[in-house]
Amino acid sequence: MDSSPGQPPGLSGQLGPSLDDPEYRAAVVDLLGVLAYGELSAFVRLAADAALAPKIGAEAQLAGMAVAEFRHFTRLRDRLAGLGVDPDAAMQPFVAPINGFHESTAPADWLEGLMKAYVGDGVGVDFYREVARFLDADTQSLVLDVLEDTGHSAFVVATVREAIAADPRVAGRLALWGRRLMGEMLSQAQRTAAERDALSNLLVGGIGGSAVPGFDLAEVGRMFARLTEEHTRRMRALGLSA
Amino acid sequence: MDSSPGQPPGLSGQLGPSLDDPEYRAAVVDLLGVLAYGELSAFVRLAADAALAPKIGAEAQLAGMAVAEFRHFTRLRDRLAGLGVDPDAAMQPFVAPINGFHESTAPADWLEGLMKAYVGDGVGVDFYREVARFLDADTQSLVLDVLEDTGHSAFVVATVREAIAADPRVAGRLALWGRRLMGEMLSQAQRTAAERDALSNLLVGGIGGSAVPGFDLAEVGRMFARLTEEHTRRMRALGLSA
Repeated sequence: MDSSPGQPPGLSGQLGPSLDDPEYRAAVVDLLGVLAYGELSAFVRLAADAALAPKIGAEAQLAGMAVAEFRHFTRLRDRLAGLGVDPDAAMQPFVAPINGFHESTAPADWLEGLMKAYVGDGVGVDFYREVARFLDADTQSLVLDVLEDTGHSAFVVATVREAIAADPRVAGRLALWGRRLMGEMLSQAQRTAAERDALSNLLVGGIGGSAVPGFDLAEVGRMFARLTEEHTRRMRALGLSA
Repeated sequence: MDSSPGQPPGLSGQLGPSLDDPEYRAAVVDLLGVLAYGELSAFVRLAADAALAPKIGAEAQLAGMAVAEFRHFTRLRDRLAGLGVDPDAAMQPFVAPINGFHESTAPADWLEGLMKAYVGDGVGVDFYREVARFLDADTQSLVLDVLEDTGHSAFVVATVREAIAADPRVAGRLALWGRRLMGEMLSQAQRTAAERDALSNLLVGGIGGSAVPGFDLAEVGRMFARLTEEHTRRMRALGLSA
């Protein structure tokens, strides 16, 4: 699709990777596949959680967040199709881990649903940013575009703060829930990373002429650690110990 | 908002109703409220049912149907706000009956979810068409616009036909399910009609200078009968006895 020499250099100052490189291409297909199914299932689960809302306005807010995820999904799916790849086939390897995450983290009530949306959105944005560094210009601009389009979080933050103010015991329960969400997410992500070498290499800059050649599980671990730190920072900002 | 003498006459050839008429206005607010909450909750439930899909492509299809409902919702909500009405307050009277319908018709599997989407979409379109006849030009054009935007039904029809071809016993189960859906829908609608006089009058042309003055439960019943006939026709077209 794109291998023009004019694309911006990566962080290391080298030329960016090219979709003409079969290993890089396979990794990008994996990446778009996992992001696409992640967005589709986030849509489905968030929308379902909207039914837990105590008020119509809140239900509509969560529904709006879900619809944003669906827009992301269609863009990622369309890019897969544009690369000549069957989107369903590209998503398939990630159905079990992503559904596994959602099944093990079904919110018990409205606040847990909101927190899940907030945690997922936050980690998603961080992850998109992490991975964008190692991508060719076209894929990078798609990923950054999709990333831009999020950010209904202000509503979640305000609602959770109100709930904690109304009943301080809520904080303990939500802190625990936040830890569980992050734990389950990391557990599924780590299992998936171990099974998808090309994708994992891409995530840590190990494909396409960047600094770290070959599979590096430790580097993947460090990326997960950075995601966890950012998650912890967000939880603290909400007044929750993470 | 609109009471210009240039608006198109109703079926009866009279001038259309005007939002300056307080009774008509109250009925339109009720109508937009029930349609808006109907679309929002259809979105939430359909999206949740997408999780039942056996394949990613099918999940994405049902998700896309749900997103169309959300677009309808935002248009109806924005019109309420444009009329100077609090959308949540306008929707509130219809939350219990609509949620009641969805709770009593939670699909047991993917095919039941599809059928529910199909039945709901069909009855919805018929209902929008019924009511559009008695509206002022602005409200009418909104209702007809929202109506235009539906129609993912081809996918449902093809999938249900395939399932029946693969296992003819499916037809009996789905026929029963279709009857239950319609029965529950009518039951909630009839209860709501009995409680919302102005809305019911509007639905049968009893407000705004048209032919039937005053509340006419029998005329409401005839409208429900027409909706049921059309539903039956669609079920037969699917190869199901309704």
